[in-house]
Amino acid sequence: METHLQIELEELKENLLKMAAIVEEAIRDAVQSLVKRDSDLARKTFEFEDRINKMEIAIDDGCLKLLALRQPMAADLRFITSAMKITTDLERMGDQAVNISERALSLNQEPQLKPYIDLPRMAEITQSMVKDVLDAFVNRDSKLARSVCERDDLVDGLNDQVMRELLTYMMSDPKAIPRAVHLMIVARCLERIADHATNIAEDVIFMVDALVIKHHADVREDG
Amino acid sequence: METHLQIELEELKENLLKMAAIVEEAIRDAVQSLVKRDSDLARKTFEFEDRINKMEIAIDDGCLKLLALRQPMAADLRFITSAMKITTDLERMGDQAVNISERALSLNQEPQLKPYIDLPRMAEITQSMVKDVLDAFVNRDSKLARSVCERDDLVDGLNDQVMRELLTYMMSDPKAIPRAVHLMIVARCLERIADHATNIAEDVIFMVDALVIKHHADVREDG
Repeated sequence: METHLQIELEELKENLLKMAAIVEEAIRDAVQSLVKRDSDLARKTFEFEDRINKMEIAIDDGCLKLLALRQPMAADLRFITSAMKITTDLERMGDQAVNISERALSLNQEPQLKPYIDLPRMAEITQSMVKDVLDAFVNRDSKLARSVCERDDLVDGLNDQVMRELLTYMMSDPKAIPRAVHLMIVARCLERIADHATNIAEDVIFMVDALVIKHHADVREDG
Repeated sequence: METHLQIELEELKENLLKMAAIVEEAIRDAVQSLVKRDSDLARKTFEFEDRINKMEIAIDDGCLKLLALRQPMAADLRFITSAMKITTDLERMGDQAVNISERALSLNQEPQLKPYIDLPRMAEITQSMVKDVLDAFVNRDSKLARSVCERDDLVDGLNDQVMRELLTYMMSDPKAIPRAVHLMIVARCLERIADHATNIAEDVIFMVDALVIKHHADVREDG
């Protein structure tokens, strides 16, 4: 028979996965609003922010109640406090998605500087990282968490490539500079979402394997 | 007579203030390494990262022990879980300081693009925000926390100013572009540190006044 705590932990897991799914959707729509030059879609993504913020508060409240009423020990305790750190990361990712939409709104008013190829690719990898890292967390799957960390290198590589390419555009045509700066910021937002996912992945590995790879790896936030 | 819990909470507060003081120092040194073109100082700031990371782990461990052994209720429970979110914010601020030092190392190898006036000003305000928000947290001082939120607008204003100025440099001289991009990133790092401080301030206000201003204010992470 399941205890109250077990049932409530299952609920917490479901809510975290729901919150992550909304964040994924926000990232996808934000990047699509840029790629498809769809400013209505960009404005629609602003609604995600409110939903994501409300979920953060609701999940954190649930965690506080769990801590107060069920007084969980050891692994469950660590799981719940980690969940509260993860909601903060998810909320920040949602903010980054909104930043992308804001840049899309500006960019969509001007002629397209260049075909968007690497940015959608970065977005795709980043979304997969958000999904997988939450799956890794709720299933205590450190192997999946490690694969999330590995994907962060791909995102960083694409980011460097985008930055170099945009610098070339800027240097050959000063009129391109404002648009290139917007696009640099979009790339940086995606890179930061990937960093958040990687931070969670490191916590999952720490939680599961009780290993502190977090602060020995040369993963560094860059933004 | 003080209980174990009270003594341990005092210790937690001291450790948080210590961690914040190191973060402040890291920000100051990183910006000074840029302003004074002192690459040795820039390299020295990399040592902060390790110290900050170790403090995060130590404080979080202490919090977990407190939760497990003392089973605190209500206000204390919220204080401890908030502390665990704050260590994450402080650690990210330390990462941003390191990013600034990395940019300083690149910039110091080239002629100085412009006198640095707004950036040290941004850094000063940002440092004061880090200090005051931790004081506000440990003293449950929502008035001080509100003043931190207000300073975020100053930082955002300075950031916009720096961005505009750098865009002008870039557009009038393509050779200035790589240096201007580095400086844009420095400004953005400072702005993000201020955002982290503001996030903590909002949590303090929430904790003290049980008010969710966090998600109604138009504070938005930008980067």
